[in-house]
Amino acid sequence: MQAAPTRTHTHTPGPAAPRKHPQLAPLPLSAVQLDPASLLGGRQELNAAATIPHCVDNIERTGVIANFRRLAEAGAKADADQAKGAFQGPWFADSDLYKTLEAIGWEVGRSGTGQWAELLSDLATLLEQVQAADGYLNTYVQGLPDEEPFSHPEYTHELYCAGHLMQAAVALHRGGGDERFLAIARRVADLVVRSFGDDGRPIIDGHPEVETALIELYRETGEESYLHAAELQVERRGHRTLAAGRFGSQYYQDHEPVREATEAIGHSVRQLYLAAGVTDLYLENGDQTLLEAMEQLWDSAFGTKLYLTGGHGSRHRDEAYGDPYELPPDRAYAETCASIAALQWCWRMLLATGQARYAEEMERALLNAIAASTTHTGTAFFYSNPLQLRTGHDGSGEDAPSERLPWYDCACCPPNLARLYASLHGYTATSDAAGLQLHLLAAGKFTAATLIAVVETGYPWDGDVLVTVSGQGELAIRVPAWAAGATVAVTSGQVIAEPTPGEYLRVSCDDGATVRLTLPMAPRLVRADDRVDAVRGCVAIERGPLVYCVEQADLPEGIVVEQLRLDPSVGIVEEPGEDGIAPVRLRLSALAIPLETSLYQPYDPASATGTPVTVTAIPYHAWANRGPGAMRVWLPLA
Amino acid sequence: MQAAPTRTHTHTPGPAAPRKHPQLAPLPLSAVQLDPASLLGGRQELNAAATIPHCVDNIERTGVIANFRRLAEAGAKADADQAKGAFQGPWFADSDLYKTLEAIGWEVGRSGTGQWAELLSDLATLLEQVQAADGYLNTYVQGLPDEEPFSHPEYTHELYCAGHLMQAAVALHRGGGDERFLAIARRVADLVVRSFGDDGRPIIDGHPEVETALIELYRETGEESYLHAAELQVERRGHRTLAAGRFGSQYYQDHEPVREATEAIGHSVRQLYLAAGVTDLYLENGDQTLLEAMEQLWDSAFGTKLYLTGGHGSRHRDEAYGDPYELPPDRAYAETCASIAALQWCWRMLLATGQARYAEEMERALLNAIAASTTHTGTAFFYSNPLQLRTGHDGSGEDAPSERLPWYDCACCPPNLARLYASLHGYTATSDAAGLQLHLLAAGKFTAATLIAVVETGYPWDGDVLVTVSGQGELAIRVPAWAAGATVAVTSGQVIAEPTPGEYLRVSCDDGATVRLTLPMAPRLVRADDRVDAVRGCVAIERGPLVYCVEQADLPEGIVVEQLRLDPSVGIVEEPGEDGIAPVRLRLSALAIPLETSLYQPYDPASATGTPVTVTAIPYHAWANRGPGAMRVWLPLA
Repeated sequence: MQAAPTRTHTHTPGPAAPRKHPQLAPLPLSAVQLDPASLLGGRQELNAAATIPHCVDNIERTGVIANFRRLAEAGAKADADQAKGAFQGPWFADSDLYKTLEAIGWEVGRSGTGQWAELLSDLATLLEQVQAADGYLNTYVQGLPDEEPFSHPEYTHELYCAGHLMQAAVALHRGGGDERFLAIARRVADLVVRSFGDDGRPIIDGHPEVETALIELYRETGEESYLHAAELQVERRGHRTLAAGRFGSQYYQDHEPVREATEAIGHSVRQLYLAAGVTDLYLENGDQTLLEAMEQLWDSAFGTKLYLTGGHGSRHRDEAYGDPYELPPDRAYAETCASIAALQWCWRMLLATGQARYAEEMERALLNAIAASTTHTGTAFFYSNPLQLRTGHDGSGEDAPSERLPWYDCACCPPNLARLYASLHGYTATSDAAGLQLHLLAAGKFTAATLIAVVETGYPWDGDVLVTVSGQGELAIRVPAWAAGATVAVTSGQVIAEPTPGEYLRVSCDDGATVRLTLPMAPRLVRADDRVDAVRGCVAIERGPLVYCVEQADLPEGIVVEQLRLDPSVGIVEEPGEDGIAPVRLRLSALAIPLETSLYQPYDPASATGTPVTVTAIPYHAWANRGPGAMRVWLPLA
Repeated sequence: MQAAPTRTHTHTPGPAAPRKHPQLAPLPLSAVQLDPASLLGGRQELNAAATIPHCVDNIERTGVIANFRRLAEAGAKADADQAKGAFQGPWFADSDLYKTLEAIGWEVGRSGTGQWAELLSDLATLLEQVQAADGYLNTYVQGLPDEEPFSHPEYTHELYCAGHLMQAAVALHRGGGDERFLAIARRVADLVVRSFGDDGRPIIDGHPEVETALIELYRETGEESYLHAAELQVERRGHRTLAAGRFGSQYYQDHEPVREATEAIGHSVRQLYLAAGVTDLYLENGDQTLLEAMEQLWDSAFGTKLYLTGGHGSRHRDEAYGDPYELPPDRAYAETCASIAALQWCWRMLLATGQARYAEEMERALLNAIAASTTHTGTAFFYSNPLQLRTGHDGSGEDAPSERLPWYDCACCPPNLARLYASLHGYTATSDAAGLQLHLLAAGKFTAATLIAVVETGYPWDGDVLVTVSGQGELAIRVPAWAAGATVAVTSGQVIAEPTPGEYLRVSCDDGATVRLTLPMAPRLVRADDRVDAVRGCVAIERGPLVYCVEQADLPEGIVVEQLRLDPSVGIVEEPGEDGIAPVRLRLSALAIPLETSLYQPYDPASATGTPVTVTAIPYHAWANRGPGAMRVWLPLA
């Protein structure tokens, strides 16, 4: 077995390695190699080759690094006034740098690349120059005349940025053995401990994030005061101490204490980062009341407010969760960062409980909403991930563009993708006393204490998952909830738990055993709860874990997406993709009904007639790679 | 006939009396008296008794008047510094005062009330004290250190506020013979003419409004330079001269010149005020290219982006129109001010063309979205007018409260309602060379040049409209588009045009004639264009011009609104209302289906079964008068 790590100042890469109360333990990042030819492994390669360099270019281009240089030069000249003003980007632009650094840290650990060594050294020097004697480091506030640090925690994102710095330092330390960023981050964390401890100012940040970061830094360094500082952040939230802005206290989840705030509400990324932090705290202190609150919150978020693609947040106005079942596909906000945050939270719930449903939702988000947010080039991104784009959509704004953009004024999402993909292999599998658990069915090699599993599969394109085991122990493979009819064949070992949808196949493997799990991959029609008004009378098409969609680009001339009515009685046919969009496409039978000319009219029970058409569906994650055009995930029935 | 007014400095009350190019002319306000027992007449009485005093109280309570007093006192003390800062409310808070003044002006003209004389005198003195020597008057900018007037027209609303001052002055002059406010407003208008004329700075305001105001002031004073100033405002818009904020140039309709910008887009109130201003300009200069652009814009707004209730704007984020057919009932923004602006625009299109469709849309807005925005007490208001409130709705914010609120931080809507209701009788009828046109089927007395019509009707509750004519001439009565089967009986005169839905019944009346128009009032099921995804599989219920809804308060114990499925094959039964909510309720047959427990599930063609229930529907405009609770206009079919 792989014991829960208890290291201090060692370079054991791995996301979120809790010390005390996990059911499952992460594998060290070095213990997993994904197959570069697989979907997930390919995304990691694309991230290394294209997305990380693109982020590095853009934090330079947009002035993020210039914000640090300006302050560093002013300090060198002892002319602080020169440092004032001229800040570029939003208040929290420092975090763009930190998330990019985190991505580099994981990538160094994954691939051993040395291409960023000089950049890292230069940036460490820059941060050392800007960091104040007391440890404070925030180029927005340091550049403002007369602004006291932490004066406006409801909006300045100072602890948020500090948290991303800590997470970057953890990644650089675990991934590449860096000590300089770790020292910078510790000085920041020590300042937080001194300033906001039991006897300090009881502030929290408008944007949760420092909670997970402090706990990760505690895990990396063994410094207990960081864990306690995180605990204080969690316990202080929900007492309405933040100045409520126009979106109210629930925007920051400051409306109720975390044990009572069991409805997912407010800014979805904030809600989900907070939940990840609370779960991390449970993983360390074992407080069951925290876990129970998180389970209720999870039911709210994933049981009543989740998009089929794994997107969260239905309101553009405040980037927020809507009411239960308020899930419009056209105005889905479904921010990329929210799906990443949801994945991070689900990962922690998985570690805490070992339950397959959390891994199921990680996969949903990863292969649909998150995968959709990046172009096939790796250099353009969706911030918002709608499930429908209308014919005639006004895509002129950053808020709801018709195609992915290279960068955003608020650029939180691209470097968040970069740090996720660079550490992605760490989210695929875990270990426990019995053996190894495979959660994401990714092709690759997974090394646990007593056994090594080599996974060969074309998943998610095909359902054949072949695992070859060296050593011995229990191999657990998650069987997706949709996989009714899954079968298993084992060459040498004992099936302990048969493949049941939504649970784990468990096999006690002998050395050299092969375990072949076969999942049914026939396309499926899916509908939503009756209360999801926005998709009433519609179905979506899934195949395996992938949500499919119909794009204008695949429609016959003269037919628009809005005219389609799916005939559910006609089978869906698979066909190979040949243009680099997706290996498996689906051919559907539909009617194209005439467009109407009156917005409102008397109800007539006679159903519309139309012209039969054949339509090709592609995976949702591959949409908008062929120019702007209308798209639908949810198709009305004929 | 009633000639188009050509007065200067005379007290002829009436909204928007164009001089040159109308098809129809407004009646003087004094020529119309609505029956106080009728729905519209009753709303006017409620406005006078409750809403106007409530507005007066609130502009005092919220500091709107204090903003003026502070500057007036500073001026008296010649200590301008004391005036700085401490501004209360949003930048455009002055307009709350001006709209309240406009309401008082119309109300003085309508009822002859003297109750506001002292307030008016005091406020005139206050404004005279604050107004700068050059005519400038804006308490937000005047109170800001170092702020030059009109430096940031994209957000300061200076011309917007100036416009509302002009419209208040016109109302006070027409309604009560006031000269002091008119003089103040003329000094402001003269400043606009001097500063932003052909050779002046080519600025426009981020919020259209001054266009109609300048034209109304021109109509009231005969001063041609005001008309030209309005023309410059219209012609300068659409050239991207306003600094584009995060919502882009289309938010202000500054993305394309008015003749090209034929899709309704951006902030809906701004779009609709602008359209009213452009139409006013057409009414004065006869430029057909303006009318043609307005007709195309109207088709976009009313043909693809209109809520069934007459609401406009489907996006909360930027208070904006969405894409065509993006009309979610739950997140309908449908700002009260947008429906008022739409009514004002339709009125001008009606004057320009004489076409019934514009009056039809005035009625839809007035009896549904606008009527719904005020409580039965007249002292609480909806800003946003959704067509659905979900069970479990978070109504804690001003943005989407579950009940009407007494006031708002951004309080544009309540005084806008007050000014509309005080002048409402002026929108009911017009005259032309042939005679009198009745557009809104309101009970009351209507005096044109050669005939007087007394209308007796319980409309919109019943469909019997009896008109008794004194004098002679052509009487035109609008037959609503839904009124298939309408009949007419005339005692003394000649039917020129039979009652045809969506057109005008026309009768050449002898003295003493009675014309009885009978409209079919059976409840109707209505559906939306197939592209309105948000209400797919649903119908709404209308009776006469009223949209109905189902409220939680009328449901059997243990059933929530979301469970209802309407059976369209069972007739709807009318029943009298007895609790002050509405005179006519409707009894529906529905199924209550069980609530589901899974957000997404495999599609199963079998339809849901449920328990038969009888449900009472009430007019949409009467909802939320019995405590917070779920509500639906659009009901899914069984």
